[in-house]
Amino acid sequence: METNVNSPESSQQVIITPDLLLEHWQAHRRLTRRVIEAFPENDLYNFSIGGMRSFAQLTMEMIVLSAPGINGIVSGNWTSEKFPFDFSTPPPATKNEILTLWDSVTDEINTLWPQIPVGRFQENDLAFGMYEGTIQYMLFYVIDNEIHHRGQGYVYLRALGIEPPAFWDRS
Amino acid sequence: METNVNSPESSQQVIITPDLLLEHWQAHRRLTRRVIEAFPENDLYNFSIGGMRSFAQLTMEMIVLSAPGINGIVSGNWTSEKFPFDFSTPPPATKNEILTLWDSVTDEINTLWPQIPVGRFQENDLAFGMYEGTIQYMLFYVIDNEIHHRGQGYVYLRALGIEPPAFWDRS
Repeated sequence: METNVNSPESSQQVIITPDLLLEHWQAHRRLTRRVIEAFPENDLYNFSIGGMRSFAQLTMEMIVLSAPGINGIVSGNWTSEKFPFDFSTPPPATKNEILTLWDSVTDEINTLWPQIPVGRFQENDLAFGMYEGTIQYMLFYVIDNEIHHRGQGYVYLRALGIEPPAFWDRS
Repeated sequence: METNVNSPESSQQVIITPDLLLEHWQAHRRLTRRVIEAFPENDLYNFSIGGMRSFAQLTMEMIVLSAPGINGIVSGNWTSEKFPFDFSTPPPATKNEILTLWDSVTDEINTLWPQIPVGRFQENDLAFGMYEGTIQYMLFYVIDNEIHHRGQGYVYLRALGIEPPAFWDRS
């Protein structure tokens, strides 16, 4: 597999710009927020299938990857004073607090995104001190991981008899 | 949201190249193939939760989006003589036939991908005669839809007591 970003063919093809990728990410985050909202409070924390984590726990993983993640993407510092979380941090105790935290992360992403240095997406880094790869790979991983676990939330909702929000609606 | 692909800031930032995006897609497809393989034959066709589709049906949706989809991405023709499917086409009758079809689609994507014209990712089209948007948006949708439904397959497997393949392993 040819992966030279400077090949003549590659350099002529713009696939997605930073503005569009930010909108792509935030559009997914808007949908995930609606999935969180769709859970009854108790089921958000206690419902699961096949020994999996609750959707509150899955949501907290998305939050940890997104912030401090965005700080690492921008600066190489994968911790954050404002979002001092790691993968062992439990979710906030209420749905309302989860949604408030979700919205703070949304704002943090919008604030830090324009500070991503030119060329940064192709740089290698050790994300969260653990995962080696390019920033592009890591960022796509964060978004894909959210889609993956949100899809699991759809099954939880269906099992609870609740119609999930439409997957194609990113408004 | 600023979406001008020709803005000075955007034009300096290469996020992902065609080569890397093809590898990103095929890496996801390799993982999805392992999820299909992990299902017992009967459960692939008959197991579901909360009235959802079987994983065979979800897999067929991925196949329909991917091919003829790749033909539409390349040429604007959203049908394919080789893959004459639409959204009402049922999955092949056995797991082995599904996997064989999956592999043909993988080959088709690899064959047609280098023929995507320069500038095509920013063009608007009416995908499958139904969905209006840029080719970039449509292609990301196809990949995201696969991640979304595959995540649901993970819940089916867990509910069946089967350990799914690792999400992070795209080998």
